[in-house]
Amino acid sequence: MLKIAKPFLLMLAGIIFLSPSTVMATDALQAELLNTLWVVIAGAMVFLMQAGFAMLETGMVRAKNAVNVMMKNYIDLCVGTLLFWLVGYGLMFGDNPSGFYGTNLFGLSSAPDWDYTLIFFQIMFAATAATIVSGAMAERTNYIAYLIGTCGITAIIYPVFGSWAWNEHGWLKQMGFIDFAGSTVVHSVGGWCALAAVILLGPRLGRFGEKGEARQVPGHNLSFIAIGGFLLWFGWFGFNGGSTLAAGTNLGHILLNTHIAGAAGAVGAMLLCFSTRQPALLTSTVNGSIAGLVAITAGCASMQVPYAILTGAIGGGLSVLGTIWLERMRLDDVVGAISVHGICGVWGTLAAGLFLTGNMYDTHQILVQLAGIGAAFAWVFFSALIMYFLISKVFGLRVSTMHEQRGLDITEHGEIGYPEFGKDVVYSSESLKDLSKI
Amino acid sequence: MLKIAKPFLLMLAGIIFLSPSTVMATDALQAELLNTLWVVIAGAMVFLMQAGFAMLETGMVRAKNAVNVMMKNYIDLCVGTLLFWLVGYGLMFGDNPSGFYGTNLFGLSSAPDWDYTLIFFQIMFAATAATIVSGAMAERTNYIAYLIGTCGITAIIYPVFGSWAWNEHGWLKQMGFIDFAGSTVVHSVGGWCALAAVILLGPRLGRFGEKGEARQVPGHNLSFIAIGGFLLWFGWFGFNGGSTLAAGTNLGHILLNTHIAGAAGAVGAMLLCFSTRQPALLTSTVNGSIAGLVAITAGCASMQVPYAILTGAIGGGLSVLGTIWLERMRLDDVVGAISVHGICGVWGTLAAGLFLTGNMYDTHQILVQLAGIGAAFAWVFFSALIMYFLISKVFGLRVSTMHEQRGLDITEHGEIGYPEFGKDVVYSSESLKDLSKI
Amino acid sequence: MLKIAKPFLLMLAGIIFLSPSTVMATDALQAELLNTLWVVIAGAMVFLMQAGFAMLETGMVRAKNAVNVMMKNYIDLCVGTLLFWLVGYGLMFGDNPSGFYGTNLFGLSSAPDWDYTLIFFQIMFAATAATIVSGAMAERTNYIAYLIGTCGITAIIYPVFGSWAWNEHGWLKQMGFIDFAGSTVVHSVGGWCALAAVILLGPRLGRFGEKGEARQVPGHNLSFIAIGGFLLWFGWFGFNGGSTLAAGTNLGHILLNTHIAGAAGAVGAMLLCFSTRQPALLTSTVNGSIAGLVAITAGCASMQVPYAILTGAIGGGLSVLGTIWLERMRLDDVVGAISVHGICGVWGTLAAGLFLTGNMYDTHQILVQLAGIGAAFAWVFFSALIMYFLISKVFGLRVSTMHEQRGLDITEHGEIGYPEFGKDVVYSSESLKDLSKI
Repeated sequence: MLKIAKPFLLMLAGIIFLSPSTVMATDALQAELLNTLWVVIAGAMVFLMQAGFAMLETGMVRAKNAVNVMMKNYIDLCVGTLLFWLVGYGLMFGDNPSGFYGTNLFGLSSAPDWDYTLIFFQIMFAATAATIVSGAMAERTNYIAYLIGTCGITAIIYPVFGSWAWNEHGWLKQMGFIDFAGSTVVHSVGGWCALAAVILLGPRLGRFGEKGEARQVPGHNLSFIAIGGFLLWFGWFGFNGGSTLAAGTNLGHILLNTHIAGAAGAVGAMLLCFSTRQPALLTSTVNGSIAGLVAITAGCASMQVPYAILTGAIGGGLSVLGTIWLERMRLDDVVGAISVHGICGVWGTLAAGLFLTGNMYDTHQILVQLAGIGAAFAWVFFSALIMYFLISKVFGLRVSTMHEQRGLDITEHGEIGYPEFGKDVVYSSESLKDLSKI
Repeated sequence: MLKIAKPFLLMLAGIIFLSPSTVMATDALQAELLNTLWVVIAGAMVFLMQAGFAMLETGMVRAKNAVNVMMKNYIDLCVGTLLFWLVGYGLMFGDNPSGFYGTNLFGLSSAPDWDYTLIFFQIMFAATAATIVSGAMAERTNYIAYLIGTCGITAIIYPVFGSWAWNEHGWLKQMGFIDFAGSTVVHSVGGWCALAAVILLGPRLGRFGEKGEARQVPGHNLSFIAIGGFLLWFGWFGFNGGSTLAAGTNLGHILLNTHIAGAAGAVGAMLLCFSTRQPALLTSTVNGSIAGLVAITAGCASMQVPYAILTGAIGGGLSVLGTIWLERMRLDDVVGAISVHGICGVWGTLAAGLFLTGNMYDTHQILVQLAGIGAAFAWVFFSALIMYFLISKVFGLRVSTMHEQRGLDITEHGEIGYPEFGKDVVYSSESLKDLSKI
Repeated sequence: MLKIAKPFLLMLAGIIFLSPSTVMATDALQAELLNTLWVVIAGAMVFLMQAGFAMLETGMVRAKNAVNVMMKNYIDLCVGTLLFWLVGYGLMFGDNPSGFYGTNLFGLSSAPDWDYTLIFFQIMFAATAATIVSGAMAERTNYIAYLIGTCGITAIIYPVFGSWAWNEHGWLKQMGFIDFAGSTVVHSVGGWCALAAVILLGPRLGRFGEKGEARQVPGHNLSFIAIGGFLLWFGWFGFNGGSTLAAGTNLGHILLNTHIAGAAGAVGAMLLCFSTRQPALLTSTVNGSIAGLVAITAGCASMQVPYAILTGAIGGGLSVLGTIWLERMRLDDVVGAISVHGICGVWGTLAAGLFLTGNMYDTHQILVQLAGIGAAFAWVFFSALIMYFLISKVFGLRVSTMHEQRGLDITEHGEIGYPEFGKDVVYSSESLKDLSKI
């Protein structure tokens, strides 16, 4: 007996060493490593969208407001990061018995590794939602009022809706609402906040003539707009790809859908401009691609490539039409954020239902999508309207006419963006003249 | 018997659970996950080269053409993406019985995950080849004509040559042609298309004097050139590293070779300028580093580090000499693309043969490399020449003299890049004057 | 016997195939693959910090010196890369019997894969240390003298200190000095080199009045400063995350600490400005975030999130105070590098000791941290002082007054950054006037 017992025991030892649980533990660790790696890289890519938004938005304003827009983009990220860690993450992803908001995980400081990975990634999303608003409100908003609005969005408005759609026990999630990476959760939320702000703010001085006719206010640096568009597009690969929250073999499909919808968005916008005999402006083209990316965000993981093209192209066309439509409503959205993020977010969320692989044009799914779209608008638009109304009463939302004319750079920050260039055009103030002598 | 049978059976169960095929399946999945992760990240990095090209090229043109160059870079990516998905990928990587072109995989929409990952990565390469051309043709090309050229390059010219060199059954591949990440397949292809276009277009107004002497036309934003260079360099890590199409432990070696060749390229260009008593201009330095990166692209995975330095440094020197030589031929390549991508692509492909680790200076290999270089020139240059000739006959390749003088931004796009700056210098049109009053 | 022998042998075969060593070999390979993947991606991200520094620093100088600053940032990367590969890496990471410098691995060209991955990553760190100096010395330094200084830093000063703190047998490492990603090793080293250079150089013309009062010299492009800040921040995720040199599940925690400290740095700087009734300038805000990132660099892997916020916020405040303090000393640091990288590097290294999870406020650890901080200052400041002194005697460190007035772009490089803009303001030379006629 002992004769076979020895190798038998050795084998047994080998098997214990190699027992399924050990291998599975190793596999689980490997999986967590891979997932961590992908999610942090994707999070860093999403971070770079902040630079994209900053360039895009700054390029679209006049030089006298360049510093102000840059500052808003920079500081809303910083304030939003701190607040989302402190409040927002818990509201969005904490235990959610009611289905309407989370109740723990506030100010996370002692947690498993994976939770830190998640919050790192989610912070970037909250910052994206907040920063969408800055462009729409540009060139006329009180800096402090803007910052307080950012606090409200990252701490309350965004995470509460997020807890409905993305929290495991959120009521929209439970209904089967599909919004993979946030056409609604991030982009429409940002868009509807922008809409509320723009309605309360009113248009910039001179944006509409006495008879209500729209006047174009060209941005000061169109090169920035294109580079901003490229940076946003790059970040979107992290935005949509990272939303798997796992390294999956389907990443190629997701990113191909994302990329091709962006391309189709630009082409869609261009074709719509040609067909309506408008010039295909750089701004429309870049916004078209962003609109395509917004539109594919909800369905990038559950759609075949040709439908991604269709979704993106229609998104691009809608961004042009939306801009025209808002202009007719005499709403002054400086960068087109409401159209690109709000309206195309709606379209993308609908498209995710319409073109769901294996279950296309399913009435139930489409109704669920519409419920999510409607809930987002109802919660976000009205809570943002109330918030900005209160801010306007307490702090004042809009700067004075004189400050708006002189530019927010000098009046809000005491700096100018390009002190050696174009002074006679940009800066009317006599007090700045001596800068040229330095 | 039953006494030992029980643990025996348990063991057996354990072994079945752990059978080699299970473990291998897990390993294969792990490998595909890792490979997917690396290839999509690398693809995203290559995407960012579009922003690099856009900044580099725009910085090198005059302000009156900035929007036009940005638009070309933006829209050629979009159109090229759609066409390469529809036609080019199949031509390049489809089944290739003849060795001269692929015959399926067009408009891929139902395929294994890995195929989507590949096409996502390859689309970025096709877009890179196409965008190389835009800088060379800058400041005088009809926008629509340019776009049609992009279609021809991404749908036919680039993928057909790609099917020779990179398709498993391509005739050059079968001969043992080494072009790891595309010194020839991507860069020379772009360079020779640019050469054909530049010959047909002729030089910009005023670029050469009455006696044929060259006049420099300074770019409008040299800061953009340097930042564009950095972005291209960053993207190159994805370009060369991702061409493994797998996460290998050799990535460090490949990226070190890539990086050090870029550094050596800049130093090589600088030293050549010093030794020939030319000033070491920023443009030459940045182009020198890009030339070093182009040169190492073919051999980055099969060369020791000192040879990577040599390859890069010679590439940098060649980019300076090539620019001088093209100028003597009175060819007006606005950004030096023919020299940097065409000529240094040739050198890099040759260097990959000369400095092949374990088989250096092998005559057979060198002849194969020369065959690939020659085949690329013959196919690409002449097909591009025919294509641009046809485009010039049907649509007109060059804008009118008046449009060229006024700048393509206002004449082709109805926009100007920097409406508040330097109007008196840049924009001669009276109709723009009122912009300053907004 | 044979009856049971057959399955028994099969089992044995299975077990041999699946033996622990095989599985471990597979696991080791998987681990190396994952680590390679993460470290090369992180290295590429750190590379992009070069673009960040270039934009930040260029934005802070006057337009007449933009090309010069871009060129310094571009070429110090190139020269530093070659020299660190040739000399620095060996000095820093070679066998280190004395604890004071490495003695082999110079000009590495035949090594295991992993060594190439490491050197690729470490080259980016050396380049970062070197490039910190360029901003402080801007607008008045001889280009060749600057380049020779870069050689000294990347070949000697930086790697020697690195061998004390990061080499397995370095004397500081042996003492238990904590500097995870280089608050001291990279940032203070760069800061103290800058301090030595700035003392020897003296302030720019007109920077201090006759009575010693400070005069602000506004940068020419504040948009660049913000975008540069974003790019640096993005690169920092690679800088701090990659310093694990391994793909760990703790990456999320490290990157969350990094990100939140950057955000807290900006907010800290802003609050300090408000509380001292200074305007919260864009430059202070961006520098505040960079200061927060510098400060968290030492302790990002060993600190709880709330302490990361505290570390970052104090760093941000210190960057403002440091700038004021340096100005009172009449030291002219154009971009605030000494304050942001030097002083906040000290604070961060101390904070890593103070807030060490599981061992907070440990006197021994704090003394070790102070020893490392002191050693860094002693070695780096004095060796840099000697080096720049020798350079100033042999080559001249500072350009002539006339060259400084005209700007280094035209006098050192024969180029100007923006030839079509603001000529009357920026460029006094008559000889440039004809550029407008091209």
